[in-house]
Amino acid sequence: MSSPAMPPIPEIDDLHDDALARALQHALDHKTKPLGSLGRLERLALRIGAILGSAAPRLREPQMLVCAADHGLAARGVSAYPSDVTWQMVENFLAGGAAVSVLARQHGLALTVVDCGVRHDFAPRAGLQIRKIAPGTADALEGPAMSAAQRDEAIANGRGLVRALPGNALLLGEMGIGNTSAASLLLARLGGFDVADVTGAGTGLDAEAVVRKIGVLRAVLQRHEAARDPLAALAAFGGFEIATLVGAVLQSAAERRVIVVDGFIATSAVLVASQLRPHVLQRCVFAHRSGERGHALMLAHLRAEPLLDLGLRLGEGSGAALAWPLLTSACAVLNEMASFESAGVSTAGSDAAVART
Amino acid sequence: MSSPAMPPIPEIDDLHDDALARALQHALDHKTKPLGSLGRLERLALRIGAILGSAAPRLREPQMLVCAADHGLAARGVSAYPSDVTWQMVENFLAGGAAVSVLARQHGLALTVVDCGVRHDFAPRAGLQIRKIAPGTADALEGPAMSAAQRDEAIANGRGLVRALPGNALLLGEMGIGNTSAASLLLARLGGFDVADVTGAGTGLDAEAVVRKIGVLRAVLQRHEAARDPLAALAAFGGFEIATLVGAVLQSAAERRVIVVDGFIATSAVLVASQLRPHVLQRCVFAHRSGERGHALMLAHLRAEPLLDLGLRLGEGSGAALAWPLLTSACAVLNEMASFESAGVSTAGSDAAVART
Repeated sequence: MSSPAMPPIPEIDDLHDDALARALQHALDHKTKPLGSLGRLERLALRIGAILGSAAPRLREPQMLVCAADHGLAARGVSAYPSDVTWQMVENFLAGGAAVSVLARQHGLALTVVDCGVRHDFAPRAGLQIRKIAPGTADALEGPAMSAAQRDEAIANGRGLVRALPGNALLLGEMGIGNTSAASLLLARLGGFDVADVTGAGTGLDAEAVVRKIGVLRAVLQRHEAARDPLAALAAFGGFEIATLVGAVLQSAAERRVIVVDGFIATSAVLVASQLRPHVLQRCVFAHRSGERGHALMLAHLRAEPLLDLGLRLGEGSGAALAWPLLTSACAVLNEMASFESAGVSTAGSDAAVART
Repeated sequence: MSSPAMPPIPEIDDLHDDALARALQHALDHKTKPLGSLGRLERLALRIGAILGSAAPRLREPQMLVCAADHGLAARGVSAYPSDVTWQMVENFLAGGAAVSVLARQHGLALTVVDCGVRHDFAPRAGLQIRKIAPGTADALEGPAMSAAQRDEAIANGRGLVRALPGNALLLGEMGIGNTSAASLLLARLGGFDVADVTGAGTGLDAEAVVRKIGVLRAVLQRHEAARDPLAALAAFGGFEIATLVGAVLQSAAERRVIVVDGFIATSAVLVASQLRPHVLQRCVFAHRSGERGHALMLAHLRAEPLLDLGLRLGEGSGAALAWPLLTSACAVLNEMASFESAGVSTAGSDAAVART
């Protein structure tokens, strides 16, 4: 599938709306609780309200989109697992036995798994979308992981997938043996970090193997010294699942969906998208700070304030799914809590039971 | 209601069970995910399994118990809100408009509100239990907040309330204008901290008022220099809701229910209970680190690892309710995720698609 006629990057407008922000803050401040006492949950409510353009936001039909692909660089020993695990885990997602399957089921998240470039041919079935660019990216040490045309096709695929999904919230998930390497490369290049500071154990490398991984990634960065802008870096480093997620993020942002960002890989797609269209970040809720080295720096670089900090380092969208109930709670607070006036509760500083006027 | 015949403090046995711990760890390690990659959620699964005595634990009929009472010390200006807010908020809990009402409804938590000593007469209704010891504690600056008999009655009430509740999980909530003062006093005395280090803004005092609050609390501590053990301190400082929660915690621990601990006040009840019966802590899941000054120190003192860190400072059980889905997720991971073997997924270190044997 290719879409040469479609410009790959939509415009993303500034959500800034003083009147709505004031209405949301007023609603929160008049709920029966001390001012600001729901902490981070109140800032979450403000953000969801701003994205959905409502002082009484309702989340509808949340979609978990898990993009999967293989990486040529995996042959260099940058992962503790063999590439075959990518397709095996896709089968596991679809069979309902993976973490993201279990958590999506728990929270009523519709699960769509996308073959963006897995080195395997899947039998078609419900819940699986085939948007395969190629059976894995090329080895980034030899050349770009993908061509510009492949990258644009993957971005267009991500946009098209989101356009076809219902609801007003998208949760980002991914699977791809070797994709922490791609995310580290993108962060090092686009964030200006030394690769050693943003490279971790991934699925479970030991210390020695991490040192080797850093060596490989340093050589890849050197090989692609010229790939400086986000689109060039995305083509140079991969992967197909990240490029597809970039498209999904851009489309969701254009449609003002709430984008729930998972861990290191999903955030790397947001990093790329936000360098193309900075207002993308206004639409994002960062689910968690993962245990993967580099994610904390990536989040800080994006000035993101994650909801959870549970040392997760699984990916798949598992952290986004775990954080989801906090988003529904934030909306419930706005929509269902009583005000001081309606409940006849006295306010701070009053000496008797006098409702605030 | 008094129960002189009942010893107030049940025995709490050591949950330590090597075989079960190994079975739980084995189950987690064979799920289709890198070892330990669900981080804190895995430790949560281990704990719930240990409490419920099962490698496939199921949480049933979770109960949110919100204990409310007034505090004589409130007349000394230690809170930003007047005491009348206690009964008004109890009405709000029952009417369904408070944060804890909304969040309990969201997550299917049965809500029981208990008048443990509110300065108000409530009309009886569904969801409200009257276990009133007195209409508020006495002023702790003048004498003990409650007598030893009142304290024992409140503890017995807490035990009786839990005995009558179904399910295998109890979430701790509370309401009481002035009760951050009682919690700070308990922590200062039982944890050996200077009261200035464990006293905060409560529902929203300004800096000057916090200084005055610290002065009042320092005088209370001096007045009760002799109240050194947990039961003496509980009587000296109050309150009735905390004493009732102490009983609820002890009874839940004796019955091996999962105890989900909310913020500063609920944790102070666990502090008292754990000094009476240290194995209580094995049954606790600490929902969050609150924004109230002193809670971080209290949690550290108990070597507790909270799940959330959202700057909440509302109480009511709101943080416990927000954390609840993480507990159900932890059980779902144990009960519903596939193993490497069952899913046919390759494991770390293998070079081909060979399932671990």
